[in-house]
Amino acid sequence: MISPAQAKKLIAANLIKIKNQKINTNTSIGYTLNETIYAERDQPPFDRVTMDGIAINSRTFKNNNYEFNIESVHFAGDSKKTLKNKYCCIEVMTGSVLPEGTDCVIPIERLTIKNNIACLEANYELKKWQFIHRQGSDHKKGEKVLQPGHKIAPIDIALILSCGKDKINVNDEPSIRVISTGCELIPAGKKIQPHQIRMSNGPSIVAMLNEQNYKNCMHHHLVDDKQIQKTNIKKYLSQSNILILSGGISMGKADFIPKILDELKVECIFYKIKQRPGKPMWFGVGPKNQLVFALPGNPVSAITCCRHYIIPALKEMCGGENPDKEYVQLQKNIHLTSKLTYFLPVKFFKTSSAIRKVIPIETNTSGDFTSLSGTSGYIELSGNKNKFSKSENIIFHNWKHP
Amino acid sequence: MISPAQAKKLIAANLIKIKNQKINTNTSIGYTLNETIYAERDQPPFDRVTMDGIAINSRTFKNNNYEFNIESVHFAGDSKKTLKNKYCCIEVMTGSVLPEGTDCVIPIERLTIKNNIACLEANYELKKWQFIHRQGSDHKKGEKVLQPGHKIAPIDIALILSCGKDKINVNDEPSIRVISTGCELIPAGKKIQPHQIRMSNGPSIVAMLNEQNYKNCMHHHLVDDKQIQKTNIKKYLSQSNILILSGGISMGKADFIPKILDELKVECIFYKIKQRPGKPMWFGVGPKNQLVFALPGNPVSAITCCRHYIIPALKEMCGGENPDKEYVQLQKNIHLTSKLTYFLPVKFFKTSSAIRKVIPIETNTSGDFTSLSGTSGYIELSGNKNKFSKSENIIFHNWKHP
Repeated sequence: MISPAQAKKLIAANLIKIKNQKINTNTSIGYTLNETIYAERDQPPFDRVTMDGIAINSRTFKNNNYEFNIESVHFAGDSKKTLKNKYCCIEVMTGSVLPEGTDCVIPIERLTIKNNIACLEANYELKKWQFIHRQGSDHKKGEKVLQPGHKIAPIDIALILSCGKDKINVNDEPSIRVISTGCELIPAGKKIQPHQIRMSNGPSIVAMLNEQNYKNCMHHHLVDDKQIQKTNIKKYLSQSNILILSGGISMGKADFIPKILDELKVECIFYKIKQRPGKPMWFGVGPKNQLVFALPGNPVSAITCCRHYIIPALKEMCGGENPDKEYVQLQKNIHLTSKLTYFLPVKFFKTSSAIRKVIPIETNTSGDFTSLSGTSGYIELSGNKNKFSKSENIIFHNWKHP
Repeated sequence: MISPAQAKKLIAANLIKIKNQKINTNTSIGYTLNETIYAERDQPPFDRVTMDGIAINSRTFKNNNYEFNIESVHFAGDSKKTLKNKYCCIEVMTGSVLPEGTDCVIPIERLTIKNNIACLEANYELKKWQFIHRQGSDHKKGEKVLQPGHKIAPIDIALILSCGKDKINVNDEPSIRVISTGCELIPAGKKIQPHQIRMSNGPSIVAMLNEQNYKNCMHHHLVDDKQIQKTNIKKYLSQSNILILSGGISMGKADFIPKILDELKVECIFYKIKQRPGKPMWFGVGPKNQLVFALPGNPVSAITCCRHYIIPALKEMCGGENPDKEYVQLQKNIHLTSKLTYFLPVKFFKTSSAIRKVIPIETNTSGDFTSLSGTSGYIELSGNKNKFSKSENIIFHNWKHP
């Protein structure tokens, strides 16, 4: 059996490259940028006034001339004006272009304006270039402002638009099929018998993918009939880049999945990982390089494997950067008896400290997803150790991949 | 001038209540649950087999009977069977109902099956109830499993569906209008003159709202013409719960917004907060209790005020729980000269410690959004202090509201 780290490497070695798509910048939030964004112009594009007031020539101020005739008024959106008489001023509004011949702004709060004369308060001190956001001081025209691989946040929308780009190249959306198998599964809203259970894994996997901006996902249910499963998996395989199966990979008599995948020429890359939950995870590659993940049917296993392996793989396929590892501090000692790496759900401990402290929430078997609700993520306790002490820093994975 | 905390209180005191809506559980991710979810049945609904193998009566095992005749095979989805002869066994699959008359499961890995007889490996030790997920051990029928106010995560989808609910009550979506004002604003993709700037604030505010699942948002641009602004703001006010204006609230001659809002009977609750960026923020309540936020036109101010005041207010209006405060540790001493609370953008410092350390990223004036890209959030440095030392824990706000 391989380790979780080996499993990640094997998946990474088999990733296909997802194409780009061009979309509107306005709706690009959460996508991975797949081009370099260059500054269209200097930013700011001109010496930009940052306060309402008057623009003057600071050299005339040195002459203690505390009254300025107002030559004209200059609004944001007006083209650049020129101060004709250097002893006068131009009234300027926030956002306007600094007039030619001026080099500082005095805020309106420091002035009284009467009969078109701006009169300055007593003892006012002034610095050249004050209240002016200098042209090109944020970035110069042609500078790289964003690189491929960047995940687009709201503030980036402003940045990209300020570069004049209303459309940008981002990752295309991989087409994903999520398949739940099992005769016992009955959807919510339908009548249920005592021996049946509610279908919940598939929809929660789809929800986790949607949350990460993978919207091209469909969910299907297949009963435990080998022929039905084979026919449909073949069809879904031809229609998608990624196949995620939940259930049907144990050693039971109705667990046809590994056999069917083999018959459909999906090459098994690995089966079973030294981990809990999720030991029986299966991963393979289809004839057209489709990635096939077969997850255990237990809800805790399925959602943990999806978060730990599938989400990071999708991100890498789409050209995204992997985030830095995060660490947390456990609030108690933990002794493990198993050699399996343990993915243990945790809640954050309320604290006014910068140390992130977590309380482990042990699930009651890997079928218990009730206790998972409200946890923030899980810690990764390596199977190579059996004691984890309170003072130790332990790797943390947020359920919501950063 | 009021403090940021007082501003938050004044906003909270004026919040309107948003109605519920009923939506499909499958697509409820990120919404706030507005009902209590009760367990439909015991979870698990029956003694559930967790391994493929055989189910036996453990008392017969005490008699050292290591061979069991297989009475029948029991699949997941089959209705409950009964073991007729207590010295025999029933072959069971993961997920099936534990047969009546049995109380433990022996995994198939420990057996050889030949001629319908399951033969156990030597020296096998057994515990009653092993490999059985007991009925009701996660929760009992009728128990509260989720409370109103809970933000729905992927794992909750599984939980809610397992309670049989395919539709649930969540917050309705407030109708929000975002209005950018200014003659100087030109959308990306259109020809631009040297004295004009790209429209970027409005779209990035909409993006931040969308990221938080507020999808019922429209963005409009109004030039600096008082009559045009008044006519349109009146219309938008009649069509929405929330109005967010960006620009037009300084003391300039083209800053008509406070006057217009007054004429439209929007009562000013506060104007200006002891903070930077974002000092000139304006907040008021319309004649039908619409909330009106008028943000400064500078991009850094606008996005910071949106994150700090509007997003938490929307969350509260929609019935959501407010998250615990988060703290980080600064990597250098900071001395402030101003009495204004300082919202300072930060990046996380790469570390293998559980202490969250941040590097401040000072922006070049509040017009500089280039440096904001790639920051994770901002720290809140109170204006009541002027020294912040390296060892101190400081409040942190993630750009993405948790």
